[in-house]
Amino acid sequence: MSSSAGTLPSPVLIDADKLTAIVADVFVTLGVAAKDARIVAEDLVLADLEGVGSHGVMLLPMYVERLQKGSVSKGSIGKVVVDQRTTLVIDAHDALGQLTAHQAVDLVTSRAREYGMATVAVRNAFHFGAAGRYARLIAGQGCVGIVMSNTRPLLPAPGGAEAITGNNPIAVAVPSSSAQPVEVDMALSATAMGKIRLAAGAGKSIPADWAMAADGSPTTDPNEAIKGMLAPAAGPKGFGLAFVIDLLCGGLSEGAIGAEVRPLYGDASLPYRCSQMFMAIDVKGFTDPKAFGERVTEQAQRVRNSKRAPGIERVYAPGELSCATREKNAGTVTLSRQVYDSLLATANSAGLRVDALP
Amino acid sequence: MSSSAGTLPSPVLIDADKLTAIVADVFVTLGVAAKDARIVAEDLVLADLEGVGSHGVMLLPMYVERLQKGSVSKGSIGKVVVDQRTTLVIDAHDALGQLTAHQAVDLVTSRAREYGMATVAVRNAFHFGAAGRYARLIAGQGCVGIVMSNTRPLLPAPGGAEAITGNNPIAVAVPSSSAQPVEVDMALSATAMGKIRLAAGAGKSIPADWAMAADGSPTTDPNEAIKGMLAPAAGPKGFGLAFVIDLLCGGLSEGAIGAEVRPLYGDASLPYRCSQMFMAIDVKGFTDPKAFGERVTEQAQRVRNSKRAPGIERVYAPGELSCATREKNAGTVTLSRQVYDSLLATANSAGLRVDALP
Repeated sequence: MSSSAGTLPSPVLIDADKLTAIVADVFVTLGVAAKDARIVAEDLVLADLEGVGSHGVMLLPMYVERLQKGSVSKGSIGKVVVDQRTTLVIDAHDALGQLTAHQAVDLVTSRAREYGMATVAVRNAFHFGAAGRYARLIAGQGCVGIVMSNTRPLLPAPGGAEAITGNNPIAVAVPSSSAQPVEVDMALSATAMGKIRLAAGAGKSIPADWAMAADGSPTTDPNEAIKGMLAPAAGPKGFGLAFVIDLLCGGLSEGAIGAEVRPLYGDASLPYRCSQMFMAIDVKGFTDPKAFGERVTEQAQRVRNSKRAPGIERVYAPGELSCATREKNAGTVTLSRQVYDSLLATANSAGLRVDALP
Repeated sequence: MSSSAGTLPSPVLIDADKLTAIVADVFVTLGVAAKDARIVAEDLVLADLEGVGSHGVMLLPMYVERLQKGSVSKGSIGKVVVDQRTTLVIDAHDALGQLTAHQAVDLVTSRAREYGMATVAVRNAFHFGAAGRYARLIAGQGCVGIVMSNTRPLLPAPGGAEAITGNNPIAVAVPSSSAQPVEVDMALSATAMGKIRLAAGAGKSIPADWAMAADGSPTTDPNEAIKGMLAPAAGPKGFGLAFVIDLLCGGLSEGAIGAEVRPLYGDASLPYRCSQMFMAIDVKGFTDPKAFGERVTEQAQRVRNSKRAPGIERVYAPGELSCATREKNAGTVTLSRQVYDSLLATANSAGLRVDALP
């Protein structure tokens, strides 16, 4: 775990259960209830185990700063402010997003099982990690799960030169006959700003369809891109889909749309205020769930059995890679030294007084 | 309207009402009820008026051949085979897709108004033209409209070298405070095969992200692309979304998924058998529809008022361009000479005996 001059610091391997416990301890130290702290910690660590570090424990320092400055509340759950059987609205009152997401998942699946389908829109919400996590939980209850969120504006409209809507993620999970649903989980930008920053750091150019410069023209210079905007995935298609997700999440919840959502990494004393939407469609409302699940599994198998393009070793069905990564990691999280160090500093700033993470 | 050697034949301008009447007459001659014939003709001509000729009257010869060969039925409507309040299945029995789409729209909006939201899945369906048309009709009833269809496999999975799923279109329409909802309507391939054929005809290369050659490798040669596969929009994102649309449309309806859907331009005596899904979410289940509509209109205005990239004259909100095109066309359809000639031949083959379209 030591680094020497001229080499990259080696990554740190940590037992997932121990990491979960320490992340939960940090939240408890800040006044979050133990049960709630555990839920958030588990969801963060799960993202790391699935190879989605951007939605994992690297978020902890930002969450902690916001809890300390009061823009994220210590409250357990949001308040159900609209309840019309299949259509509900939760006001999250800035609770940790994972907590209101679990609340929304429980509510939307119980209503879908009773009425066939249901939607919960959430306003005044905070970051909930990976949307796919919650779509999968809905699928685990025999329902198709669809989960969306808006973010602050990042994408220009086609031909535009200012960010209008976020790269609003959407996840869909479809129950199969195995424990692993078919799952898609995507942000609607062509790429993530993190990848553009990596290219800038490495002095490399970026593909022309990743970003626009500040004047709205395409750029291959990552530094121009950082001052500019992310390109929508597939141009007008990704922009259009992101825009309607913004309208649905923020419009149906009477929450924030577009620029009413604040930057996640902006002033940590101001609430983030994103809006989210959770939908569940009960498979048994249409067909026999067992036969449906078997067809889904067969179709996923068709993908896996695809003829392969030159140089490709394996074709994955949607959602399979994160599952395979989780199994491969077998309960051990790999953190970069940078993330490790920031977690340690955060734990100490929260009052834990630890010399090392376990 | 005449053409001379060395120049392209000039397009033909036709009054939309007269074109609608003659297209309806063709269907009636083939045994379709007058009221139904009118509905299909209007939907086809509307697509032409909105600048989406690929979903317009150019489809008539194929529809007619399928009606003549019996793979499209003369029946008016499909049969509701599952009805559990918010979740319904229609077996279309190969009726003209526009007819079962209108049936599904009426059913799904009435149920959404009663229960808050509803979904109608359709099996054994035929081509319904532009999905956005039906999402908009749902939005016209104060509901968010979501419409999807599958097609025969056209897209490989990431890293794959065989077509697994269609470029399955999805349309979403969100009611605004004006008659024009915010609307997106997209197929999930990077581009349409028609554009690749145009490039091949013109001897031009195509962008590297449009298509794969038959071995799954990217190609800029349109002739290799025609023998190969369409690329998904935004790679894994478009593939994943197309794949779950396939599972939802075909799985929930107990209809065809993937390769169970037949080619639209294949053997015209075999039913097409696509599957579709119509969803309606009643805005008033969540919030005041008037205030919601006003926010949607404001957000569309934000898009229109965007700062513009160099060389851009105007930024359109999603759905605005087709509306503007319809208004500009002011009831006159412009057909290529090729489409005009094929319509005339089709009308005569159906027994209409006309020398010219009006």
